[in-house]
Amino acid sequence: MILALDAMGGDFAPGEICLGAMVACSKYPDLEVILVGNGSLIEKAIEGAEPFVSKRIHIVHTDEYIAMNESPMVAFRKKKKASIRMAMEMVKSGDAQGCISAGNTGAVVAGGVLILGRIPGIDRPGLGVPIPLPNRITLLIDVGATIRCKPINLYQFAIMGEIYMRNTLGVKSPGVALLSNGEEEIKGDEVVCEARNMLAKADIDFMGYIEGKDIPLGVADVVVCDGFTGNVLLKFVEGIGDALYKLLKDEMEQRILPKVGFLFFLPMLKELWGRFDYEKYGGTPLLGVNGVVIKAHGRSKAKAIDSALKVARDFVVHRGVDLIRDGLDRGGM
Amino acid sequence: MILALDAMGGDFAPGEICLGAMVACSKYPDLEVILVGNGSLIEKAIEGAEPFVSKRIHIVHTDEYIAMNESPMVAFRKKKKASIRMAMEMVKSGDAQGCISAGNTGAVVAGGVLILGRIPGIDRPGLGVPIPLPNRITLLIDVGATIRCKPINLYQFAIMGEIYMRNTLGVKSPGVALLSNGEEEIKGDEVVCEARNMLAKADIDFMGYIEGKDIPLGVADVVVCDGFTGNVLLKFVEGIGDALYKLLKDEMEQRILPKVGFLFFLPMLKELWGRFDYEKYGGTPLLGVNGVVIKAHGRSKAKAIDSALKVARDFVVHRGVDLIRDGLDRGGM
Repeated sequence: MILALDAMGGDFAPGEICLGAMVACSKYPDLEVILVGNGSLIEKAIEGAEPFVSKRIHIVHTDEYIAMNESPMVAFRKKKKASIRMAMEMVKSGDAQGCISAGNTGAVVAGGVLILGRIPGIDRPGLGVPIPLPNRITLLIDVGATIRCKPINLYQFAIMGEIYMRNTLGVKSPGVALLSNGEEEIKGDEVVCEARNMLAKADIDFMGYIEGKDIPLGVADVVVCDGFTGNVLLKFVEGIGDALYKLLKDEMEQRILPKVGFLFFLPMLKELWGRFDYEKYGGTPLLGVNGVVIKAHGRSKAKAIDSALKVARDFVVHRGVDLIRDGLDRGGM
Repeated sequence: MILALDAMGGDFAPGEICLGAMVACSKYPDLEVILVGNGSLIEKAIEGAEPFVSKRIHIVHTDEYIAMNESPMVAFRKKKKASIRMAMEMVKSGDAQGCISAGNTGAVVAGGVLILGRIPGIDRPGLGVPIPLPNRITLLIDVGATIRCKPINLYQFAIMGEIYMRNTLGVKSPGVALLSNGEEEIKGDEVVCEARNMLAKADIDFMGYIEGKDIPLGVADVVVCDGFTGNVLLKFVEGIGDALYKLLKDEMEQRILPKVGFLFFLPMLKELWGRFDYEKYGGTPLLGVNGVVIKAHGRSKAKAIDSALKVARDFVVHRGVDLIRDGLDRGGM
């Protein structure tokens, strides 16, 4: 299997990105990775690789890349040789089975739609993040592909998320919930309310509305919301982790008695919080486009890139795109 | 000072509501509370009160109340004698200086607008929750009064929130931020983007966009968002607290070595999480209506009701409604 990896996207590119490719190639003997970006920087980054690994890492050079603060649509149209764009074009041409980028989210979404196109019937794509909770993995969709949604978008996120969880992550009969500002039917605005009515008729295990408090409790396998809300939520979790950790450290310096407890406890807490940390999962599939596109977190280091490559690999192995296409056909959308 | 308290609103009404009134009256010798609701139940709930307290607790009987799952507008129009409605009418008539309810949020918002009316110039009211963070109190506005917003709504939440933090909570020159799906100017939908342009011209310390991760880190005094996003976020915090606590308890049962640490640590963690817990604050002012209306959490027990009465009292003392009215006049909205 050949995957194209945008070597220039993310806060730690290209060093950590290349390292991640090396880690993944050392794990999966059938995997080949095309690193797209500045050739000389990439060469330097991978120069320590074992021959067993390096023979499966290919470099495609380009000088252009899209920065985090660029307007995705403008940059994507202007920079025909941007690393992220070239990686997507490899998927389109069949030179790669999937692509991964830790760069500009907007560019990944806009590019996915422009280069690969949408699956017939899909109105807008959705980014679905699998959040590892104590009792299950919950897919939160969308987390930033489609900022404001129409009812049909929320409906399609639900259907695509259900198919992804059932087939790629192996959840039998996933429970699908719609995020709202209350559990009662009278809650939600017209968009959420209309999506609810549509989902109630769909051939899935639809649980109706859930509230924000239900997400961490792991009540559903798929939680559907617009990209604005999902993005705010996901980043909020990140911030709580940072804030809580800082708070605990400050506390430790001020207290004497529980210090002994703290020393035992901090590593455990770190591990526990890690379960909430979506970076560990490493990759978010862009569902609804005609090809495998995985968005990795902007702060991704090698470990996260390795995970993102695994997500892409699983998506290819399970024929994720075909399953969504078939699922939509069957669903009579 | 006389405050009207909806004795029938919330999960623990009327017992805990009445108890909360007794606690507050024992603390503030100038405070009188009118308990509105089922007279015989209220009488039973307050029968143990000291004369010093009971002489300042008045009962106004009514059989009607609005349940949590009722449609706010319909219920409010139909039930002319609903406890929450009568409490608001006391504020309108001047019989009380402010009112508090732990009941149906939609009814509090709809009722506030219907009975007391909006402050001239205000398009829609906003519920502002002060969240106690390690380094400051951050007001999150709106958390459910106005589910989807126009730019003018977000703009007005920012102005009202700034006035509330500066005058009632005593923050000098509060920093005001707009919640978005990224820090860069290109982020946000048209509504958020337009609100940003409006706020950039306002005479406040406007910080631009912040992301979800910045909220727990306490980067701003006022964080502005639509009621849907704010409601989801606030309840999500509640859920994380519950989930984390459960997770830690489960862990303790499985591990041997760090148990000693756990025993020292759990009370501390509980206290720390409590700082994030908005219930402790107990009351959320409905900003933008012509009178003091405080929404208490539906799960409020006596302690939270006591806090909500304090919030109402402070709002009255600091002439919160007048300050918003004057602030809007000055701001040239």
